[in-house]
Amino acid sequence: VETGDAAAIDALMEPLHAADIADLLEQIGSAERADLVRLWSKGIDGEILSELDESIREEVIEALPHDVLTEAVRELDSDDVVDLIEDLEEPQQERILGALPEGERAAVEQSLTYPEYSAGRLMQREVVTAPEHWTVGEAIDFLRNAKELPDQFYHMILVDPRWHPTGYVTLGKLLSSKRAVKLTDIAEESFRTIDVLEEEGDVAYAFNQYHLISAPVVDADERLVGVITIDDAMAVLDEEHEEDILRLAGVGDGSLSDSVAETTKQRLPWLGVNLVTAILASVVIAQFERVIAQIVALAVLMPIVASMGGNAGTQALTVAVRAIATRDLTGSNMWRVVRREATVGLFNGVIFAVVMGVVGWFWFGSTMIGVVLAAAMVVNLVVAGLAGILIPVALEKAGVDPALASGAFVTTVTDVVGFFAFLGLAAMVLL
Amino acid sequence: VETGDAAAIDALMEPLHAADIADLLEQIGSAERADLVRLWSKGIDGEILSELDESIREEVIEALPHDVLTEAVRELDSDDVVDLIEDLEEPQQERILGALPEGERAAVEQSLTYPEYSAGRLMQREVVTAPEHWTVGEAIDFLRNAKELPDQFYHMILVDPRWHPTGYVTLGKLLSSKRAVKLTDIAEESFRTIDVLEEEGDVAYAFNQYHLISAPVVDADERLVGVITIDDAMAVLDEEHEEDILRLAGVGDGSLSDSVAETTKQRLPWLGVNLVTAILASVVIAQFERVIAQIVALAVLMPIVASMGGNAGTQALTVAVRAIATRDLTGSNMWRVVRREATVGLFNGVIFAVVMGVVGWFWFGSTMIGVVLAAAMVVNLVVAGLAGILIPVALEKAGVDPALASGAFVTTVTDVVGFFAFLGLAAMVLL
Repeated sequence: VETGDAAAIDALMEPLHAADIADLLEQIGSAERADLVRLWSKGIDGEILSELDESIREEVIEALPHDVLTEAVRELDSDDVVDLIEDLEEPQQERILGALPEGERAAVEQSLTYPEYSAGRLMQREVVTAPEHWTVGEAIDFLRNAKELPDQFYHMILVDPRWHPTGYVTLGKLLSSKRAVKLTDIAEESFRTIDVLEEEGDVAYAFNQYHLISAPVVDADERLVGVITIDDAMAVLDEEHEEDILRLAGVGDGSLSDSVAETTKQRLPWLGVNLVTAILASVVIAQFERVIAQIVALAVLMPIVASMGGNAGTQALTVAVRAIATRDLTGSNMWRVVRREATVGLFNGVIFAVVMGVVGWFWFGSTMIGVVLAAAMVVNLVVAGLAGILIPVALEKAGVDPALASGAFVTTVTDVVGFFAFLGLAAMVLL
Repeated sequence: VETGDAAAIDALMEPLHAADIADLLEQIGSAERADLVRLWSKGIDGEILSELDESIREEVIEALPHDVLTEAVRELDSDDVVDLIEDLEEPQQERILGALPEGERAAVEQSLTYPEYSAGRLMQREVVTAPEHWTVGEAIDFLRNAKELPDQFYHMILVDPRWHPTGYVTLGKLLSSKRAVKLTDIAEESFRTIDVLEEEGDVAYAFNQYHLISAPVVDADERLVGVITIDDAMAVLDEEHEEDILRLAGVGDGSLSDSVAETTKQRLPWLGVNLVTAILASVVIAQFERVIAQIVALAVLMPIVASMGGNAGTQALTVAVRAIATRDLTGSNMWRVVRREATVGLFNGVIFAVVMGVVGWFWFGSTMIGVVLAAAMVVNLVVAGLAGILIPVALEKAGVDPALASGAFVTTVTDVVGFFAFLGLAAMVLL
């Protein structure tokens, strides 16, 4: 495609959705990307910029001529502009803010005063309201005569004279009710407001839990300041999940479009933590050098105990981390869950102990090696179950994201306990 | 609470949202739950049943008196009834179907003929349509006179005379446009239809990617059969993510409310797979028994190489699995991503090789042990990066969910390569 044929590119890109064009830009190499942006700069609009991955967005914005960029950002709603620029470097932020008309620039700057990842950053400021004493007829007349309504809105928010939201009415209900009906009589039951400082993850949780379509955002005085719609909440939910998965695997903010240097840096810390825990496990093994020197079979079998423990621990841990994230694990069911994990560990421990006992026995022709292996397996799987639940709960209590840090702690525990139980028992029984 | 005081329970539960009551029922023990359902059965409505976890739903339905159940399911929309009963056992399904009025029963049974996890199961059959030649005025008059409209709807779907959807109009646009305007002139650009057999995960992806609020569902003849709204898509997105996270950790369909026996059974297969791979790694170690017997330090250090490889592999694998799920990893950028993973593995390998070389050297006072450890680390981290990307891609090509199976394969590769590289190099260099 990159023969410099601008017309051909135009024909190919025109029918695509902005999100797909953004994906395309992310997937091609950076040299090709620069060429494409240069040849097709007039095609890059605000929506495409919004969809781009952060790392690539900066690159593309830098490559865009001033007039294209101006036009691109002017067509966006204020919340989309906030989303677009909040992760950019200072000079690029300035460049985009400069391209906005005065009024919108002020609105964007105001939004940026709310903390990152808060409802304030997520909301749109354009709201459609009605005094709570209005009837359906008054509301419909108002809407039909309104000059400027937001692109997308699904509810009219009822406000009292002091601008406190007191309910909302769906447009569907509005259209299907008689003109004389009071708005308060057809207001939705599911009404709830969101605090402007609420964490965006909690906002997404509320939308999903209570099946909200849109929700008014209020400030500390309970005054209406904006509205969040479900599509924004869905995007947040998606991001939060993504983050959880990547954190559980010890990958910071990884994305395929990051450079090699960035990726190396993102993955280093977790590998570093893992190195420390691995060395800790090695120190445990070193205490039993004498035993291993006499019975080399122990060196052959010991990784099995540690590896089974690590896996069982990861299973328990993942379920616990998810349960914490979805608010399913609370003080009231905590001890029942702990008991359950320990019991599951015990059952699986016994099952695999029998299997491994037999394997150890046949392989090395020693009953005692089989017995030691089996016993160590039971101990380690029970400990794995307990560590898998107690560690994330403790981290959560301590204010640390359990998705981020639990893995390292749990595998440390299962490695250390696994090696210690196996080699320690062997030392006692076999020497 | 469980002193049998029904009035007190009533007072406590009444103000709660159905989703919160369902969470409460999930978190208490099963004896308490039975008591609560018995004492408060009239409070259990269809919405609460919808929100309940599958395993508990059966239990609660069984405990409900017939008249309460009948009333509970009659108040639900047909798509919610489908959602409610699709996972139930045959006799319970019959019981609920029997409680429905004839017409709705037929609709539900029709929906159940679509494959599980398809758009057909997700959609609601109640749609609001308008002939495509209508004007805004005609549409508004139609809505204002309509007898029965769905509880929630955000668009009017335009259909041609053969019932093919050709576009849709938001209620907001409808309300704010002049009566003479043709509906086709204010139709949304983002219009796209969904095939009734499309997989629900793909539906959720489309909603998230294209910022859809609702989308018409069509059959093989492109005829309109229903509509899917964003709140259902959001719930699916949530479930799919949950599934991916749990699968990556080797936990089938785990939930905190499953019994010990179920949980043990869910976790067994993955632990079994892990046992086989662990034994495979042990077989590799067994080939070097002679070397270990002579230099016990090798037994102390070998888990470090394997563990670092396992972690680096899991990192690469998780990013790859996510990229496949979000369609960010395609044929066109595949080789660039593979090259990147190998390079990242090489960089991190060299960094940790230096660290570990020094540690090995100081700890055991042998330069050669340090060198061997360092070399094995580089080899294993590069292999980990490659395995982390190539294995999920290969599984995806083979039609296996990479989230489910990649972990086992990747850790097998890194364990085997790690032990083999470290002990093999040691045998060559140190003996």
